[in-house]
Amino acid sequence: MYIPKIYKSEDLTLMKEIISENGFALLISNEEKLAATHSMFLLNETADGFYLETHISKANFQAKFLKDGDNVLCDFLGAHSYISSSWYDHKNVSTWNYEAVQIRGKVRLMNDGELYRHLEKLTSKYEKIQKCPMLVANMGTEYVREQMQGAFGINIIPEEVHIVSKLSQNRDEKNKESIISNLKETGNPHSIKIAEKMQNI
Amino acid sequence: MYIPKIYKSEDLTLMKEIISENGFALLISNEEKLAATHSMFLLNETADGFYLETHISKANFQAKFLKDGDNVLCDFLGAHSYISSSWYDHKNVSTWNYEAVQIRGKVRLMNDGELYRHLEKLTSKYEKIQKCPMLVANMGTEYVREQMQGAFGINIIPEEVHIVSKLSQNRDEKNKESIISNLKETGNPHSIKIAEKMQNI
Repeated sequence: MYIPKIYKSEDLTLMKEIISENGFALLISNEEKLAATHSMFLLNETADGFYLETHISKANFQAKFLKDGDNVLCDFLGAHSYISSSWYDHKNVSTWNYEAVQIRGKVRLMNDGELYRHLEKLTSKYEKIQKCPMLVANMGTEYVREQMQGAFGINIIPEEVHIVSKLSQNRDEKNKESIISNLKETGNPHSIKIAEKMQNI
Repeated sequence: MYIPKIYKSEDLTLMKEIISENGFALLISNEEKLAATHSMFLLNETADGFYLETHISKANFQAKFLKDGDNVLCDFLGAHSYISSSWYDHKNVSTWNYEAVQIRGKVRLMNDGELYRHLEKLTSKYEKIQKCPMLVANMGTEYVREQMQGAFGINIIPEEVHIVSKLSQNRDEKNKESIISNLKETGNPHSIKIAEKMQNI
């Protein structure tokens, strides 16, 4: 993606927030042909940085070709909303405000132990907020190992991180206020989130 | 993306709905390197089918390399939601329900006239619902032509269409009802939409 300077962020806390809140994201590769799979991602922090984890079905085209060292692109789209130029006090073209993260990295396939821990963490992330959490520990090791047979676990070691935070930074205060109030009026949660983000910059 | 048979749809009405409601989508290419841009798409119906239209900034990496005949992949993610296995009456792994469209196609770059009409249609789609619509006609031809200088218009002629509608089709009625009521309880609009879609199949 192309990020004009005013929309470019270096904020790793924002990056982690976007990835955590939009963990059902896109794994893009080009082994044999362009391919992209919506899958569940986790960001794993390490002493000297982080890497991404995800898993896809072994029946997926990407699982047949991806191997250690292959290049992939991971795309996480956060809140986004149409911005009407009718909300401005001057003539201009309409646009789209959004937050997103793209991570270009290299594949490192998971071994069985890593895949097991990945599924444990992933399940814990989404289950701990449920009324009756169904954690991996409740399922039993044998059952989880059986289910794992169909899964292809992938670590992605980041090489490039791109964070976009496009929030009408090119508008003056008066126009920003008008955009914020119009976004809130839509009632759309994504638009309201963009409005709140705009208020915080 | 990998679509197991039970989640595969051939419903072109559903495809048009997903594209129309999720028009801020992803243009993926691999000229020189993997690249993906979030941009505004339109589906253009023709006598014998359809094609996609979008535009990106001329400063975008993709605009420097994409040419007629290049292969691209367009990804439209519709409603989606985590499905907790704690909502089932039996042991199972959690999953994610979602609707999405992926279109693999060939680039046909727009000429100036096509780009102008594309911007007209795009503006009309999003402006006609505004209180004071700012249509291209209101902006004046000269102003629009000036703004067009920075835009790179792309038609995508479809070669493969993939529609996924993953809505717990592998669950019995009792479990489906439980998933639907739990999704509605979340209050999340995406989850509620998935619940409504599940009710309609």
